[in-house]
Amino acid sequence: MHPSTLLTLDTPAAIVSLPRMQRNIERMQQRADALGVRFRPHVKTSKCAEVVAAQRAAGAAGITVSTLKEADQFFAQGVSDILYAVGMAPHRLAHARDLRQRGCALQILTDSVEGARAIVDHGREHGHVFEVLIEIDTDGHRSGIRPDDELLLSVGRVLHDGGMRLAGVLTHAGSSYELHTPQALAALAEQERAGCVLAARRLRAAGLPCAVVSVGSTPTALEAASLEGVTELRAGVYVFFDLVMRNVGVCSQEDIALSVLTTVIGHQADKGWAIVDAGWMAMSRDRGTAKQARDYGYGQVCDIDGLPLEGYVLSGANQEHGILSHEGAPDADIVARFPTGTRLRILPNHACATGAQFTAYEALAADGGVARWPRFHGW
Amino acid sequence: MHPSTLLTLDTPAAIVSLPRMQRNIERMQQRADALGVRFRPHVKTSKCAEVVAAQRAAGAAGITVSTLKEADQFFAQGVSDILYAVGMAPHRLAHARDLRQRGCALQILTDSVEGARAIVDHGREHGHVFEVLIEIDTDGHRSGIRPDDELLLSVGRVLHDGGMRLAGVLTHAGSSYELHTPQALAALAEQERAGCVLAARRLRAAGLPCAVVSVGSTPTALEAASLEGVTELRAGVYVFFDLVMRNVGVCSQEDIALSVLTTVIGHQADKGWAIVDAGWMAMSRDRGTAKQARDYGYGQVCDIDGLPLEGYVLSGANQEHGILSHEGAPDADIVARFPTGTRLRILPNHACATGAQFTAYEALAADGGVARWPRFHGW
Repeated sequence: MHPSTLLTLDTPAAIVSLPRMQRNIERMQQRADALGVRFRPHVKTSKCAEVVAAQRAAGAAGITVSTLKEADQFFAQGVSDILYAVGMAPHRLAHARDLRQRGCALQILTDSVEGARAIVDHGREHGHVFEVLIEIDTDGHRSGIRPDDELLLSVGRVLHDGGMRLAGVLTHAGSSYELHTPQALAALAEQERAGCVLAARRLRAAGLPCAVVSVGSTPTALEAASLEGVTELRAGVYVFFDLVMRNVGVCSQEDIALSVLTTVIGHQADKGWAIVDAGWMAMSRDRGTAKQARDYGYGQVCDIDGLPLEGYVLSGANQEHGILSHEGAPDADIVARFPTGTRLRILPNHACATGAQFTAYEALAADGGVARWPRFHGW
Repeated sequence: MHPSTLLTLDTPAAIVSLPRMQRNIERMQQRADALGVRFRPHVKTSKCAEVVAAQRAAGAAGITVSTLKEADQFFAQGVSDILYAVGMAPHRLAHARDLRQRGCALQILTDSVEGARAIVDHGREHGHVFEVLIEIDTDGHRSGIRPDDELLLSVGRVLHDGGMRLAGVLTHAGSSYELHTPQALAALAEQERAGCVLAARRLRAAGLPCAVVSVGSTPTALEAASLEGVTELRAGVYVFFDLVMRNVGVCSQEDIALSVLTTVIGHQADKGWAIVDAGWMAMSRDRGTAKQARDYGYGQVCDIDGLPLEGYVLSGANQEHGILSHEGAPDADIVARFPTGTRLRILPNHACATGAQFTAYEALAADGGVARWPRFHGW
């Protein structure tokens, strides 16, 4: 049964089921432990101190961030082992150096000779040794150097010979989000592992240091058969999961820890629509399930207890209006089924995008207690 | 020429061109003045005190909001004539009443007998007279009562006989976003006007008061030939415009006042990609141009001065990575054209969604001065 708080909170609100979140955290930590690697969660999903504290309590070793604001915020909260996993822009080097000089063991990333030179130049100018990973491209989806590219050694040499600490290599097989079978995911996980390990081996063979071999995405982390040669695993969205991950096949609807609490504010009875106060400002504009086997529109409708109401989705969204309808034939009883004032919960397509629309999560404990957990926003 | 500030601001940043914004504000105010109606801008686009101050200075009469947080914030900043243009959820009545009792002339909205009864019941219980508009559906896209529906009079009677102040009728032809010719927009504007005026006439013929006849969307506001019988016009996104509005045909790229300043952080030379630090967290996930005649991906790439670089778009986006590429044939010279560290500006698909990703706008004046204008977020 839902606690009465879910009837009195203003809506829309971002509800985090703590039992589900805790289960997700333990599942991923156990994967990393079983695979014999450190686990460094990506905190861009939650941007929330309490969520990250739970990940660290379960055994996480350091965190991964996508912005220096995340690094600032979590360093201020006592996390000092931080990997900034986006290619370093030269204008951010002073900010990164400041964090390091204040005691944050911040690692940075590059994938080009120019990027490496900018790091070396800034480091030398300021008498500072940066700790740098080289980004490896193992699936062609975004940034990075291919493991067999000569460029890898050039970048490594610029960093190492320039007096920086070449810490290792990093890759992210983000194309895993486009797959949906365990076989394909396991194959991509092996490609991710093998590519990153090859890059490390080539650096070492060239006489360059490469202590860290860091891989991961939520789907490949969960489906990897072996992480031999890898030292560190990263994943982010697993902490909440979402409908895209359900379609990828690495979680069920019952694992999804984030939902948007919403209120029915009206109807278009003849169309079978209920209008709710979760529009795209609450759900985000993410339509990640649109190109997957199961399209949930802007989200799966659940009752206030979080139980999915099969066949009911948010089929449309304006800024502060969501259109709730039955897939296929319109529901002729929509007004009686969901009267004005009814509270529902919507499972999101993409937890990272939906969470970012809110200033706080409402953390719902197993005993029905609800705590407000702030999250930050912007750069 | 760009001011040096655009070279030193951290990125991504939301740049507002003040000359363009001011021109957009004056264009819409002049439209309303010429059509002989009050203009009540929708502040959900900007959520920014300085932007709304410019709209009011140009002649706006009151504001429209999409959340009670917007009402709270702008009332605290001295705006007291506020229309909350989302169907009233019963649980928000106490909040609305509090605003009114503190001196805010807040108008609220309903489109059902149950909604009207909830307003009447709450008002009577607390000895408070709410000022209520009835929402009219003139294009079938969302909420509201059709102008010829018997329900209109029922709702009007519940409110009026229940002692509330029936202030008038309101409609929003949001389906205008799906059109792209002046003829079709003018026809929809006339449908919006005629439907709302008909609803007002029916209420008055039934002996019910109906002082306010409020219509509007940016495209219909700009293409309406006549607003006879209308008292008030509303529009929101016109203040910044965006690529969706460019495709609808009501602005040019040169009118778009919002852009995202970004930095090139890497390349995939063989694919013709530059990687920039404006991903979907900066641009939003809005892909509103995907179903229009001209698809801009996640946005149109411009140089640092805001001049569009024809053929270059953000073709893909991860959370903090944007993929910049040339449409059609890849640009073999991408690295030389956009070296690491290059600053660019991206015109967004949807200004309301992109703005919401930032904690502030960087307001760029004609003289090159840049001021930081905070905007708020959440509910």
